[in-house]
Amino acid sequence: MEDLQKFQVVFQPSGRRGLIEAGKSLLQAAQELGVGIEAACGGGMVCGKCKVIPEFGSFAKLDLESKQENINGITKVEEKILHAEEIAKGYRLACCTTIQGDIVVSVPKASQSAKQVVLEEGKGRSFEIKPAVRNLYVELDPASLADAADDSRRLLGALEQEYGLSGLSLDYQALIALPKILREHDWQVTAVVRLDKNEVIAVRGGRYEHNLGAAIDIGTTTLAAYLCDLQTGEVLQKSSRMNSQIGYGEDVLSRISYASASPEALEKLHEIIIGDINELLQEMAEAQGRSREEIDELVLVYNTAMHHIALKLYPGYVGRSPFAPVVSDAVDIKARDLGIRINPGSWVHSLPIEAGFVGADNVAVILAEEPYKSDKIKLIIDIGTNGEIDLGNNDRLLSTSCATGPALEGAQIRFGMRAAPGAIEKVVIDKETFEPRYKVIGSDVWYPEAAHTGAKGICGSGIIDAFAALFKAGIVGKTGRINAKLPTERIRQGTHGSREYVLAYADETDIGQDIVITQADIRAIQLAKAALYVGAEYLMEKFGTDHVDEVILAGAFGSYIDKESAMAMGMFPPCDIDHVQAVGNAAGDGARIALLNIDKRAEAARVARQIEFVETAVEPDFQQRFMDAIAIPHA
Amino acid sequence: MEDLQKFQVVFQPSGRRGLIEAGKSLLQAAQELGVGIEAACGGGMVCGKCKVIPEFGSFAKLDLESKQENINGITKVEEKILHAEEIAKGYRLACCTTIQGDIVVSVPKASQSAKQVVLEEGKGRSFEIKPAVRNLYVELDPASLADAADDSRRLLGALEQEYGLSGLSLDYQALIALPKILREHDWQVTAVVRLDKNEVIAVRGGRYEHNLGAAIDIGTTTLAAYLCDLQTGEVLQKSSRMNSQIGYGEDVLSRISYASASPEALEKLHEIIIGDINELLQEMAEAQGRSREEIDELVLVYNTAMHHIALKLYPGYVGRSPFAPVVSDAVDIKARDLGIRINPGSWVHSLPIEAGFVGADNVAVILAEEPYKSDKIKLIIDIGTNGEIDLGNNDRLLSTSCATGPALEGAQIRFGMRAAPGAIEKVVIDKETFEPRYKVIGSDVWYPEAAHTGAKGICGSGIIDAFAALFKAGIVGKTGRINAKLPTERIRQGTHGSREYVLAYADETDIGQDIVITQADIRAIQLAKAALYVGAEYLMEKFGTDHVDEVILAGAFGSYIDKESAMAMGMFPPCDIDHVQAVGNAAGDGARIALLNIDKRAEAARVARQIEFVETAVEPDFQQRFMDAIAIPHA
Repeated sequence: MEDLQKFQVVFQPSGRRGLIEAGKSLLQAAQELGVGIEAACGGGMVCGKCKVIPEFGSFAKLDLESKQENINGITKVEEKILHAEEIAKGYRLACCTTIQGDIVVSVPKASQSAKQVVLEEGKGRSFEIKPAVRNLYVELDPASLADAADDSRRLLGALEQEYGLSGLSLDYQALIALPKILREHDWQVTAVVRLDKNEVIAVRGGRYEHNLGAAIDIGTTTLAAYLCDLQTGEVLQKSSRMNSQIGYGEDVLSRISYASASPEALEKLHEIIIGDINELLQEMAEAQGRSREEIDELVLVYNTAMHHIALKLYPGYVGRSPFAPVVSDAVDIKARDLGIRINPGSWVHSLPIEAGFVGADNVAVILAEEPYKSDKIKLIIDIGTNGEIDLGNNDRLLSTSCATGPALEGAQIRFGMRAAPGAIEKVVIDKETFEPRYKVIGSDVWYPEAAHTGAKGICGSGIIDAFAALFKAGIVGKTGRINAKLPTERIRQGTHGSREYVLAYADETDIGQDIVITQADIRAIQLAKAALYVGAEYLMEKFGTDHVDEVILAGAFGSYIDKESAMAMGMFPPCDIDHVQAVGNAAGDGARIALLNIDKRAEAARVARQIEFVETAVEPDFQQRFMDAIAIPHA
Repeated sequence: MEDLQKFQVVFQPSGRRGLIEAGKSLLQAAQELGVGIEAACGGGMVCGKCKVIPEFGSFAKLDLESKQENINGITKVEEKILHAEEIAKGYRLACCTTIQGDIVVSVPKASQSAKQVVLEEGKGRSFEIKPAVRNLYVELDPASLADAADDSRRLLGALEQEYGLSGLSLDYQALIALPKILREHDWQVTAVVRLDKNEVIAVRGGRYEHNLGAAIDIGTTTLAAYLCDLQTGEVLQKSSRMNSQIGYGEDVLSRISYASASPEALEKLHEIIIGDINELLQEMAEAQGRSREEIDELVLVYNTAMHHIALKLYPGYVGRSPFAPVVSDAVDIKARDLGIRINPGSWVHSLPIEAGFVGADNVAVILAEEPYKSDKIKLIIDIGTNGEIDLGNNDRLLSTSCATGPALEGAQIRFGMRAAPGAIEKVVIDKETFEPRYKVIGSDVWYPEAAHTGAKGICGSGIIDAFAALFKAGIVGKTGRINAKLPTERIRQGTHGSREYVLAYADETDIGQDIVITQADIRAIQLAKAALYVGAEYLMEKFGTDHVDEVILAGAFGSYIDKESAMAMGMFPPCDIDHVQAVGNAAGDGARIALLNIDKRAEAARVARQIEFVETAVEPDFQQRFMDAIAIPHA
């Protein structure tokens, strides 16, 4: 192919610049450079939203001469769409303006589609707000004897005329609601359009903005949910709850086994999780004084088993060789088909699953952390009831799944609890006195500064902290045994016959009993961290590296895991502590990113296909390595 | 534009021929000439289904020289797709063969997509069988450790490879059912694909054929349903029943009024009609030993009010000025969204409604009768609870709606009943003795040859027959009064004080009482026929004609209306009786045509937009004309 001439194009105020082929439009240039310009009609020269102002002159700082003749003259389309005053002010439509030389373009605020949002958690990931649904306001002519066209055609006709959107269909539930809304709101309504489906999924009265979207990370043990403003990207509400399926088995395999027994059993577990989802969404909307019917989009991430059960897909074949899922690509299902009670015309987007036990939650983690864009080798550890580990860079990406059990989430721990007010989340233990200091969620004062802390249990990050603190204080040795010979009453023989350390005495708590960490708790944590360690080791070998450049610790703990504690307990191969980062619930972050930016869904689909899944448990030396990794820290 | 050279192309065995532009493919020629050739990939040169055999030589009968050089040589694609033996036998792919001269083409049976079907009712309308859903058989590689792709991608991949169908999606309910069906049937399955939606709506085990489709004409009083084989077009089962909404008002206006009162009232009427539909479908499938879940497509036609209520759309605005429907275009709604219990992945297709009170049923009548293709001026009278009249030809088409009331269907008639076994359907009365002869549905012997006829009442066509017979025998005069002075005991003063004629004595019947025709019955029929007559008169005036070339009498009476009786009573302007035709339920026929041929849906949409609706009741001389038309016959 012939090399086309390219020119420098600079967009202001973002300052984004790049070389663009001659003859392309400014809209195409903006899209290539990731500059968000409004274009409801998708460049169809209809909507007139992509107004920009080319700037001319010598730009010393940019080292650029931007001349009038470097773009084409004003077109017929622009003369028709732009007002005379706009033309006088130098406005052009980006879709109609072609590049013939270096050019600087100013994008007025009204034309900027892209509101950048920074995830308030984690490490400042930023992405463009570009949700799958758009609010499009129209004013219709009322039905009259002279024009008694039907309501549906009246609306769709206006959307075509105003926004250049042709071939739109109207969701059946939106159609049912249409006649009253039009008449109650004087024929001035906002159509909520799911762009990639070419479908109107709701019609609301007047100029409606700030519709809601939700993202939920469905863990085997815990659900973490986010309610967002789809226009600003702001997280309005966060909430979490236990997965009510827990009564049907604590781990993935027992859930699969239960749900595979009969269609009724699958239906039951499906309904339980849908019930949890509905409660979370209802609570969050209510807390904002909004209706759950204003939620126009829901994104779900989960492991493969939770994925199948939540979507009522038979999970039996995922649990046995050759482990074929029913569907692994992303799917969009109408909320009403799933029994999810939000806008009944809305779609539920399920991110793709990767392979076998590596699910959509891990795809979401990767979407949030973007190792596939990094030169450096990243090791990502996502701790849940199963631990997922990813290792790689922009060249290659491996992943594996480790059977950690739910201990690191606080489950199967005597006083383990969900990250909620009253949960101990930070622990330090004095090396001399063996006395603890701890902090509970919901209070800023540490024990013993606060004599009554109202503690109710220990959450995931608290468990890891406590474990590391017990080790650092010498209470727990390399093998994991609690040293009974130390001069403190906090170490004692528990009622169940095994040793324990008293973290909080009954009178400090809200539960009227001592909160202890037992020898069995220690063992459960050792097994979990050993599984993670060995998984990381195998991935490094397969990748062919003896080091990692960065370690990222993720998990829906409720608060950040303490990276020093994690390293102290030997959860991952040694790495410079400055290059270890705790990012909180990356799977939830990834789900939100997919909620707020439709392009990221395509990115997720691509990445999910590229990841190489590594099965570690079948390796011949797995058992030996696993036993070795149980010691603290792993030497 | 330059005139391209055209050549004669003749397809065998159908004999269809026409002039086709040079350079077009044989597949394009077949499509232009309406010759059905299999082409699952739509001409994408992938599926290899469009095999044809060009014939060479001198065809005296066709007056044609068909030469080898009149088509292009065999292409690379054909060499790849066709077997060596096929090439040796002269097979070509129609999509790859271009026209360079006159040519005769033989279409082997296996390549013929179009089975012609003749509607067994009416006047031999024939059309191509081209349903919206297709059965596509595939054999998949089982999932294995080496290839553990998910079930969904495995199926969609095979459909793309085998049939060139890319971008297919899988309905959610079909997805749920997928994993078991694949494994229970050894990975050999048939995908049911709704072509225009690009969607797999069901997956069935093995090589599945002959799936079911249904068409229902939902009248205000009666539902008429057809169960068809979607592959052959055969009507497997017919059924009808009363509309159970009848308890909520006998006419359209009272139904609208009830359903508009509250969302609950609309919901109730909606559920009633859906219940009727479900019962009809269940009965018909059962009678065929089939499951209702094998019904893959349902087409509904109805008047505008029934349309709105069946689809749960608020009907209030249809009933008052400016009479704007919620939606008038054809809509496809998932059966499960409507609560219709057939294949849950299937779509329900609702034909477009025309305007105001002229609904999808009239569009179906027009689709069946095709006045828009006729040189002659046709007058079509469709008798239901409302009477719809169409008048026109290939130049222009007018329609109107007449408030006939349900009398001509047998409702609001003392002994009126649905067309079912026991209903009197034919009546003759002797001019001398005033003794009747009559025939009931379900028996071939007439009274008095059969002394006990088991009569239970009189159906619509029987009412019209009886009315005409009473008039011809002089029992009813021009004004409609029953002549009490005639020497027969059959004319008597009824228990309700008005005169009546005894059609059947109690001992002949199965109901143990005399079946009579009352003076009130006569009046109701007079009003109905006057409404029809005046409607036709107005349409003729608007059209600018003083005559019609053909009269077509349609209606879901159960049996054909007697055209002599209809003319005798003055139901329509005079016309040569040889050009009057009774066609039975043309709306039902039109619904079946739309069920069995997807192209006819587009035709219906076009026609629905072209019809000019004429409002007759607002004409200043309407009342006078109406009063004049009450006499028998109209002079």
